[in-house]
Amino acid sequence: MKINSNFNNLQESYLFFNIAKKTKEFIEKNPAAPIIRMGIGDVTLPLPAACVNAMEKASVEMGVKETFKGYGEYEGFAFLRQAISDYYKEYNVIVGIDEIFISDGAKSDLGNILDIFDDDNIVMVPDPVYPVYVDTNIMAGRKVIFSDANESNGFTPAPDKSVKADIIYICSPNNPTGAAYDKAGLKAWVDYANEQGAVILFDAAYEAFISDKEIPHSIFEIEGAKTCAIEFCSFSKTAGFTGTRCGYTVVPKELVREGRKLGDLWLRRQSTKYNGTPYIIQRGAEAVFTSEGRQQIKENIDYYKQNCVILSEVFAEKGIKFFGGKNSPYIWLKCPGGMKSWEFFDFFISKCNIVGTPGSGFGNNGEGYFRLTGFGSRENTLIAADRIKKTL
Amino acid sequence: MKINSNFNNLQESYLFFNIAKKTKEFIEKNPAAPIIRMGIGDVTLPLPAACVNAMEKASVEMGVKETFKGYGEYEGFAFLRQAISDYYKEYNVIVGIDEIFISDGAKSDLGNILDIFDDDNIVMVPDPVYPVYVDTNIMAGRKVIFSDANESNGFTPAPDKSVKADIIYICSPNNPTGAAYDKAGLKAWVDYANEQGAVILFDAAYEAFISDKEIPHSIFEIEGAKTCAIEFCSFSKTAGFTGTRCGYTVVPKELVREGRKLGDLWLRRQSTKYNGTPYIIQRGAEAVFTSEGRQQIKENIDYYKQNCVILSEVFAEKGIKFFGGKNSPYIWLKCPGGMKSWEFFDFFISKCNIVGTPGSGFGNNGEGYFRLTGFGSRENTLIAADRIKKTL
Repeated sequence: MKINSNFNNLQESYLFFNIAKKTKEFIEKNPAAPIIRMGIGDVTLPLPAACVNAMEKASVEMGVKETFKGYGEYEGFAFLRQAISDYYKEYNVIVGIDEIFISDGAKSDLGNILDIFDDDNIVMVPDPVYPVYVDTNIMAGRKVIFSDANESNGFTPAPDKSVKADIIYICSPNNPTGAAYDKAGLKAWVDYANEQGAVILFDAAYEAFISDKEIPHSIFEIEGAKTCAIEFCSFSKTAGFTGTRCGYTVVPKELVREGRKLGDLWLRRQSTKYNGTPYIIQRGAEAVFTSEGRQQIKENIDYYKQNCVILSEVFAEKGIKFFGGKNSPYIWLKCPGGMKSWEFFDFFISKCNIVGTPGSGFGNNGEGYFRLTGFGSRENTLIAADRIKKTL
Repeated sequence: MKINSNFNNLQESYLFFNIAKKTKEFIEKNPAAPIIRMGIGDVTLPLPAACVNAMEKASVEMGVKETFKGYGEYEGFAFLRQAISDYYKEYNVIVGIDEIFISDGAKSDLGNILDIFDDDNIVMVPDPVYPVYVDTNIMAGRKVIFSDANESNGFTPAPDKSVKADIIYICSPNNPTGAAYDKAGLKAWVDYANEQGAVILFDAAYEAFISDKEIPHSIFEIEGAKTCAIEFCSFSKTAGFTGTRCGYTVVPKELVREGRKLGDLWLRRQSTKYNGTPYIIQRGAEAVFTSEGRQQIKENIDYYKQNCVILSEVFAEKGIKFFGGKNSPYIWLKCPGGMKSWEFFDFFISKCNIVGTPGSGFGNNGEGYFRLTGFGSRENTLIAADRIKKTL
């Protein structure tokens, strides 16, 4: 038996694994250090009551013969797909429930969607970026090229028509930089993809954090996107579902390549390698869209955004350059004193006892930058801000 | 963008999709027909109370800051892996919790595990078999060869040393035939795999239905299996989790190919393309192993087994040859009168108003056979038995 030799081309360790390891080592040497973790982009507020109530109710239903649910539809229950379709209408986007596919999270879908693409497509990924875009393609042996995201383009690179790409990743609002494309910026990518016959994989996991009215929440707000884009969304950051696991992917009917609807290929992939998202979890996700749920998730998102404001203010006051934090839960700061990312990690954990994410873990262009999240508790965020103010 | 052209080599429709379609057509023509569905292998009894209570409690925990869970470990929570490790001890199998990987179901893992194998391995699949073994490999362009399961070998084919295979699927107790390997039968495959350097993918989804003491529940009961086998298990049939979604995969530390532990490759795959199984669901699965849960799932499994006894008795009485139904929830019958599988489907739905699964949908050797399940209600099973008695 031959193993997939592409695994040998993966970098040995995952970014967050290294952060956990280095943090553990620091704590072992400094057991009394009051560590504040702002490294992994995980939420800290509990689930909204609307979701909890819905899942309790669904659990009870599963124990009663008349309301028990066995295998569901591979693409998810219609009640949840309808709620999502209705949500899209708020942004004047019309998406049919047969274009929506429920899953256990955007990360799974972003990896698994690659099954429908040939291995010899050229993949274009922004640098810096969420590491799994690159790793999932390396696993399949695809060629990965990068578009430079940097300060000069506000971390929102534009397409270069002289460069050929088949599969294009866009994450907006961006993880890790917090940058978000405006409509003109996305339109340029949509036009490029349609001209090249490319497909855009649009990661909208952070859309609920958008504050600016001119920033699109969905790529399907852009004319022409339905013939070139697949959108990936998640309840993880929108509603605190990081441990509850639900997401959804939109594949428009108009998206056709080589005479085949990509939605049909995706359904074939899912029906063969996936058996649907738990009924209980789908009921919890449905509750996100109720008026009670909407109010509760807004309160949570506002809480995290206020954390970003607190951090932004202290960095502004200290004259430390930073990006994001407005349409995104991430603050992307330029390491002070010209430090490299891991150098700043060590400096920051020892001086401030704060764990963050080295920007270099997201790509070459991330070197010299550092990611912090607004997902902590208010208390910890205020303490962190105070330490930064006094120490940096 | 080029699509994965292997998708063009997949058979157009999925077996169960066709059954649903033909059943729908029959009902449209015969709206009054009292259809009994014994086609898809889905459970009908509600979840055990132990699982429901655990999931209700876990849902409440998710709404409280102190007990809320965000991202879990990719391989699953230790509490569940420990419960599974303890369960294995009942069969004198020692499996460490770091060899157990929790997922959303055996089907997902059986498909996704293929990511760690090179595409040019030769895959050996029994015929007839659960269709996704073949489809998932066709999607990757792998060569699939078949081992003949038939009446002469009791639907448990033995290895042929003159045939080279790299990846070998074994499903025991078998879907669809209900046949189960004894220890000697499995030992032959383990020896073959170790000699060839092959890997066995052992699907143990139906182990909880084993009645005979000499039938192994795990391939790891066989000496030498830890250097050649990966085992896939599921709560779907054991505890009625078809709509609740939880399974687990065991990759022994001793399983090494080309100097790499396959467990490390699998964890790398999962950490890159999966984000863990919902906390709530893992708590529900943990409850399966409590004494209360064990008692409740036993009652459910005994109920389904009794359905198989009822069906077996009527087929024996009618002189219709059948297999399985003892260590498995499936009865595999030889279509009477030399009918072909789909011919019998049409005959059976029109004469008895019972929907079953045509054996030909599981492979060439399934032609002329038909699968029925014991997963129906007692009431429907008794009505079905009565109709068969009077009509066939």
